[in-house]
Amino acid sequence: MIAVDAMGGDFAPRAIVQGSYQAANRGIPILLFGDSVHIKSILLELSQKDGKSLDSLPITIEHTTQIIGMEAEPGRAVLQAKDSSLVRAVQAVADGTAHAIVSAGNSGAALVAGTLILERVPGVLRPAIGDFLPTKSGSVFVMDLGANTDCKPEYLEQFALMGHAYVSMIKAIARPRIALLSNGHEPYKGSLAVKQTYDLLRKSKLNFVGNIEPRELFDDLTDVIVCDGFVGNVMLKTMQGTAKTLISWIDTERSQSWLYTIGLLLSKGLFRGIKNKMDYAKKGGALLLGVKKPLIVAHGSSNAVAIEHAIVFAHKAVQERVIERFNAQLASLLPAQDTFVGAQRLDSHQIQQ
Amino acid sequence: MIAVDAMGGDFAPRAIVQGSYQAANRGIPILLFGDSVHIKSILLELSQKDGKSLDSLPITIEHTTQIIGMEAEPGRAVLQAKDSSLVRAVQAVADGTAHAIVSAGNSGAALVAGTLILERVPGVLRPAIGDFLPTKSGSVFVMDLGANTDCKPEYLEQFALMGHAYVSMIKAIARPRIALLSNGHEPYKGSLAVKQTYDLLRKSKLNFVGNIEPRELFDDLTDVIVCDGFVGNVMLKTMQGTAKTLISWIDTERSQSWLYTIGLLLSKGLFRGIKNKMDYAKKGGALLLGVKKPLIVAHGSSNAVAIEHAIVFAHKAVQERVIERFNAQLASLLPAQDTFVGAQRLDSHQIQQ
Repeated sequence: MIAVDAMGGDFAPRAIVQGSYQAANRGIPILLFGDSVHIKSILLELSQKDGKSLDSLPITIEHTTQIIGMEAEPGRAVLQAKDSSLVRAVQAVADGTAHAIVSAGNSGAALVAGTLILERVPGVLRPAIGDFLPTKSGSVFVMDLGANTDCKPEYLEQFALMGHAYVSMIKAIARPRIALLSNGHEPYKGSLAVKQTYDLLRKSKLNFVGNIEPRELFDDLTDVIVCDGFVGNVMLKTMQGTAKTLISWIDTERSQSWLYTIGLLLSKGLFRGIKNKMDYAKKGGALLLGVKKPLIVAHGSSNAVAIEHAIVFAHKAVQERVIERFNAQLASLLPAQDTFVGAQRLDSHQIQQ
Repeated sequence: MIAVDAMGGDFAPRAIVQGSYQAANRGIPILLFGDSVHIKSILLELSQKDGKSLDSLPITIEHTTQIIGMEAEPGRAVLQAKDSSLVRAVQAVADGTAHAIVSAGNSGAALVAGTLILERVPGVLRPAIGDFLPTKSGSVFVMDLGANTDCKPEYLEQFALMGHAYVSMIKAIARPRIALLSNGHEPYKGSLAVKQTYDLLRKSKLNFVGNIEPRELFDDLTDVIVCDGFVGNVMLKTMQGTAKTLISWIDTERSQSWLYTIGLLLSKGLFRGIKNKMDYAKKGGALLLGVKKPLIVAHGSSNAVAIEHAIVFAHKAVQERVIERFNAQLASLLPAQDTFVGAQRLDSHQIQQ
């Protein structure tokens, strides 16, 4: 059962409900949180168009009365909007009614709700968003892609540890290569936090291969790239913007010559292939790692297809017990937790074990 | 007269000397700093190939005995290597022998040498690298592209002020739009420094249009983008890496189908056009703004053509008195300096006047 925040996202609730409808058509049980009247009317419209009965689909609606807007300040919103589609959906996963949650809404609020309600894996300082980005001959796992804007070196070191655990599990690589994103290869390059993290990673037992420049992002030089969420988000969005712009330039400029038009028509399939490779939205969403249950952050601009993909991704993660297995491996890498201490803060020398 | 650091860069001294030779052939007087024996032999080889006499070219060599390597720690290197090609070249500009300097060497060292030897414009907290990046229908000025990795809000506010002064001068726009690079439009998005800068810019007299996401980098939504040098460098290099990779994918995948090959052959000119538009290296280099004399930082990987372009850019900047005019305008925007205080540190409320 996948809990879906029907009211979160630039095109909510329509795109979210439609994506959920499509995923339910693939047999995935869905629990939709939001305004039940609105959701029901969209679902009826979709099912009537398909000539199907809504009752045959595995969709349940849970009515909620509040919405956390894209502009809301995350921390306050989560604490105040207890009956919001987001908070109720996350709560359903925490209490076991559903097994994973998908939200395309206010991502800051999703992170706060995930951290507070799903709870962190003991020892984790900051949960973070990790995902695979395409490279020339495969993919590279980047963490953090947007959860934590200001990061202490100890946070970055833990992202490396989480990246190690995730990639070694998903790709079955014993010692994935870990690189630190910086503005140069030399150890003295980077922000203060990056330079201090370099030292921590060099002393760690991870397979640290040094700094990587974003220019080399696609060059398969590493399996994991570690960065703070601000820089990771800038990198991801620059990648998307550049790819989109290049393709739109090709579209615009071809009108200048019939030769170009013919040429591009002949190679249309090639561009579709490349567009798909760069089209991060196709993936649907990314996991928040470091919390106890699966939370998938989808893009705010998600359309129905992106939501469908995010739900399929969530369903697959649940079936393959990805988070359960990841958390078990992570726990074995983190120092033992004294349950009486309570505080999650660890000293860096403890993490390095 | 342009001072060139002949020993700095991945392909130094050959690429640097060759680029200088080409620029000298266009009539630009050049003062080359480096190992005179090595430089002379390259120049002789080039002139013999062209069947020209070296004496007819406006090139002078100044022998230096030290080299600041790409891996050297900038601060220490500049202080210790007084007879390096970089330090001597910067010194020549400071004492008026030359009018601008071009270096493709250790960029950190170039920045330190520029700041210490050329001196800051009074009131400037941190000189920074600013340059125009291509957009869909023009260009956007981004600052800082790599000089300052850790920035206080007051530094970022000054980058906005410098961006305002530079763009209003170069593009003759009275009140250029200033945007702050962040991971979302909302004022609460961004790192702590970015959020604090948002407040400073909102209260300033600049034409502040809010946060911009790197996804919108090419969309002509602003005239100036403000960011710290770490993030700016990540953005620039991600852009370069993405464009390069997309084009290499097109090259690789076309071999899979003769239809693609024909199609791409027909539209070859189009790709050359787009490649040129994205090819930042073609520009040669970027200015360090906030120091008293022109210093052009070229890319470490500069080839002869890039160096030639950087020298042409430097020459044009000197002829048009770009830095002189920019500094005069900047001084009028900065609060009056008390020459007895000495310290360059200003309170943010002073800068806002």
